[in-house]
Amino acid sequence: MTRAFKLTIAYDGSEFAGWQVQPGQPTIQATLEEALATITRSKVRVIGSGRTDAGVHALGQIASCVLPTWRAASADLRRAINTKLPPTIFVTDVTEAPIDFHAIRDATRKRYRYQIQVGGMHDVFAHRFRWHIRIPLSVDAMRRAAVQITGRHDFACFQAAGAERKSTVRTVHACDLIQLPAVAYGAPDRFVPTVNEADLPPGDGQALLLAIEVEADGFLYNMVRNIVGTLVEVGRGKQSPDWVSGLIAGRDRDAAGPTAPAKGLFLQRVDYGPQVSNRAGFPAC
Amino acid sequence: MTRAFKLTIAYDGSEFAGWQVQPGQPTIQATLEEALATITRSKVRVIGSGRTDAGVHALGQIASCVLPTWRAASADLRRAINTKLPPTIFVTDVTEAPIDFHAIRDATRKRYRYQIQVGGMHDVFAHRFRWHIRIPLSVDAMRRAAVQITGRHDFACFQAAGAERKSTVRTVHACDLIQLPAVAYGAPDRFVPTVNEADLPPGDGQALLLAIEVEADGFLYNMVRNIVGTLVEVGRGKQSPDWVSGLIAGRDRDAAGPTAPAKGLFLQRVDYGPQVSNRAGFPAC
Repeated sequence: MTRAFKLTIAYDGSEFAGWQVQPGQPTIQATLEEALATITRSKVRVIGSGRTDAGVHALGQIASCVLPTWRAASADLRRAINTKLPPTIFVTDVTEAPIDFHAIRDATRKRYRYQIQVGGMHDVFAHRFRWHIRIPLSVDAMRRAAVQITGRHDFACFQAAGAERKSTVRTVHACDLIQLPAVAYGAPDRFVPTVNEADLPPGDGQALLLAIEVEADGFLYNMVRNIVGTLVEVGRGKQSPDWVSGLIAGRDRDAAGPTAPAKGLFLQRVDYGPQVSNRAGFPAC
Repeated sequence: MTRAFKLTIAYDGSEFAGWQVQPGQPTIQATLEEALATITRSKVRVIGSGRTDAGVHALGQIASCVLPTWRAASADLRRAINTKLPPTIFVTDVTEAPIDFHAIRDATRKRYRYQIQVGGMHDVFAHRFRWHIRIPLSVDAMRRAAVQITGRHDFACFQAAGAERKSTVRTVHACDLIQLPAVAYGAPDRFVPTVNEADLPPGDGQALLLAIEVEADGFLYNMVRNIVGTLVEVGRGKQSPDWVSGLIAGRDRDAAGPTAPAKGLFLQRVDYGPQVSNRAGFPAC
């Protein structure tokens, strides 16, 4: 019996050439398809809710797949896939879905998170997951700019060149700045060793950890990384917060801030309509 | 003018064949020596306080080196070295030291930290820095066992075979179990995205994070990893806490628990006598 499944996937994208299959390159999609092919002994296509670029991570990427031969429970499928994956990819959940479930077409909303370390020393344990900015940022100014991004707008100014979509209008439901408490290098809240604060060389001081979370009904190519680069221009004082609404109105990519590095970006969650979002509605087998 | 320096070094040991220079292998010592050779245009020997094995990390490894040609401040030396290092190694501090300072001989005390994740799901972002144990551990029983390790004892039972030292007597000043609050997968206190706890698949539950810190006047080869493997046997209920004092008295390596994996281990700090420990006593230049 042919069945469809919804997979929730976490990955450290540092050593992958992104989500999408590319001949001769390690990708998340290819690794998952190989794992499923080994388990089911058939060729399986895994469709992700969106292609993440090289170096971009996911906590809650969603993928759909159709398996012609799987007869056991969804939980058994999850365990079986995970035994075939490298330590940098992990399937956190598998649920059965309607047979026509499609991870791209059916997505109603996505949330990305971008992580920034402001000041402090380079962190050898966390550098894969942060953009480290060595100069101070005004979080207040960035918050005032972020407000102008929320709402329904034409976001052409945040779309990477060469990747144009038919419509560049999207609704940004939230653009939140989350400031985490300042921590010493290797502070215990990250579950790595602590050094005495007095031991820190003067001048390096403490790091500020900042997360920017953007939730929308859809995203243009590089949209989050371009929003982050733009907010950082404001945080550095190179532009005023009010600059952003004019930027959006102008629809000119070259006017916006630079694209933030891939490594700080996480696909945090993807939402679907009621027919797939409620796991309890699809009891395993 | 020939000058001696004390370096404090953090590293992610995952992709190194340990501290010590080995022909044809990437090691921390070789990487530091190459960086210093580039900067000073002379061959430099870097002596670490102890050799960490492949996969073992450091937050506060200490090394000594003698530079024949460095005329600038210690802080400039730190900056110069860091520009030549990969993102997995970072020098957090450089101070000038007495010309005869030797990182091994002069060390008076060391502290290691071992990190364990009990239960919960595999974490793609932190797996390099934890031993993941999938069954419950009794932290109370482990604490009662740990008390028996502190004090001055012959620790032959915790010494790896084939690496015998002249004396196996050491003083363990502390063997602390630190239990961190249970966290959901990717909780914000680690500065990675959060999933709603309700989204976690039933059965995987929440993870307990446990750190074992051991401080002593010196360590035998693999001593911390053997102590951890032994405490885990007690935590799993395979042995009673009282087993440990008999184990130490018996001096038999084969009787102790298995060696815990390298990846959970961090060299946290190394202490020296007053002539090198007080940075202010050696102003840069």
